[in-house]
Amino acid sequence: MNAVLEQLQSHRSIRKFTDQPLPQGLLEKLVAAAQGASSSNHVQAYSIIRISDRRNRALLKSLAGEQAYIEQAAEFLVFCADMKRNTEAAARTGIEPTMGMTEQLLVATIDTALVAQNLAIAAESEGLGIVYIGGVRNNPEAICELLKLPQNVYPVFGMCLGYPAHNPEVKPRLPLVTVLKQDYYDDQHDPVLIDQYDTEMERYYQARTGGNKTSNWSQSMAPMFSGKLRPHMREFLLKQGFELK
Amino acid sequence: MNAVLEQLQSHRSIRKFTDQPLPQGLLEKLVAAAQGASSSNHVQAYSIIRISDRRNRALLKSLAGEQAYIEQAAEFLVFCADMKRNTEAAARTGIEPTMGMTEQLLVATIDTALVAQNLAIAAESEGLGIVYIGGVRNNPEAICELLKLPQNVYPVFGMCLGYPAHNPEVKPRLPLVTVLKQDYYDDQHDPVLIDQYDTEMERYYQARTGGNKTSNWSQSMAPMFSGKLRPHMREFLLKQGFELK
Repeated sequence: MNAVLEQLQSHRSIRKFTDQPLPQGLLEKLVAAAQGASSSNHVQAYSIIRISDRRNRALLKSLAGEQAYIEQAAEFLVFCADMKRNTEAAARTGIEPTMGMTEQLLVATIDTALVAQNLAIAAESEGLGIVYIGGVRNNPEAICELLKLPQNVYPVFGMCLGYPAHNPEVKPRLPLVTVLKQDYYDDQHDPVLIDQYDTEMERYYQARTGGNKTSNWSQSMAPMFSGKLRPHMREFLLKQGFELK
Repeated sequence: MNAVLEQLQSHRSIRKFTDQPLPQGLLEKLVAAAQGASSSNHVQAYSIIRISDRRNRALLKSLAGEQAYIEQAAEFLVFCADMKRNTEAAARTGIEPTMGMTEQLLVATIDTALVAQNLAIAAESEGLGIVYIGGVRNNPEAICELLKLPQNVYPVFGMCLGYPAHNPEVKPRLPLVTVLKQDYYDDQHDPVLIDQYDTEMERYYQARTGGNKTSNWSQSMAPMFSGKLRPHMREFLLKQGFELK
């Protein structure tokens, strides 16, 4: 297996970081590399906000799920889907830009995810650890206010970066054949495979928590589907100019 | 610059491929590496459909924007956001799963993009070229029918993979300071930088097309905002179970 495949396959989210800061200029180098990501029609519909202000780090921590590493990591970035730059560019050509299409939400969200994943890989290739913070969507309005995010921009997720201070095991992934399908969607054999995966994940959780976490994968899916997940998101997106038309 | 950063930064979409197939087992190796991607609460909300049936390749080509490389590339994958597996897993724990939240659309779309970008990087590390095909969202309903995509699954984009038969220049990206912001969103200096970038992109397009394409970046943004971009997407997602609640 080549070194890149090795790196991709051994990714673990890092949630404990040393105090060591990034060397001067490294973050810029990582972002420049990340910008190489593909982008729908070259829109590059993202902005990355680097949070160096310590007070705002503390505020973001409390707004995004009270995860200590948001404050502790050497760097915390907020990845924003950004259609402001593009609508303004389009307006300069004399057209009246149409915003608020569902498709535009998808384009900007996907672009942001692609550049973020490149940045994650760039960071890990330099010995850093990362963790995505979906918790920025817990209180997106307050975060917009704090970071002065204008219309047509929304915070998709955050990312902590820093030098790892722990070495967690790689979490087992779904069996390959459940996610890679041939010619059409066929999941008739998946229940058996998911059963096996549940057993594997149960063992993993038990080992990781010294026997405290006994749930399996299927059980850990329940919270996302019991009750309404982040029910404010729709209204929030509408207000930010992503009108889901 | 390390080899990974070098690779990320020199990405170009490949649209001409040799006839050479991938060695036996390579695609599976790439997907396994790609599965290392981060995932929101480990939902892994994606499925990848490998299209080997030649007739379906031709049909997909015509449904996804008539791009010849969809037929010609050694591999063509359709990346699907997949909440079926997760809702079923959640249901096995005895709950009545709630689907259709806007947040769930975001989670599944982001998960799909992260694994796809990992796959792109894995592929390029093995000497392959790739191009994303957003055109699968031109006719998503027809594609769902063709690939038998069930409720709670939708095609996000495609990807062609194969050995490159051309060597395009790397396309210039937005100036770093326009996409990496410090502590809050500030774009007051962006117009000057975008002007410079427009000039750079105009030169790039002229060089690439032997003088035939004279537009700049801002001009190339206009089509995405003049008129309604893929206006069927909202209705399509509702039908597939992504109800944008």
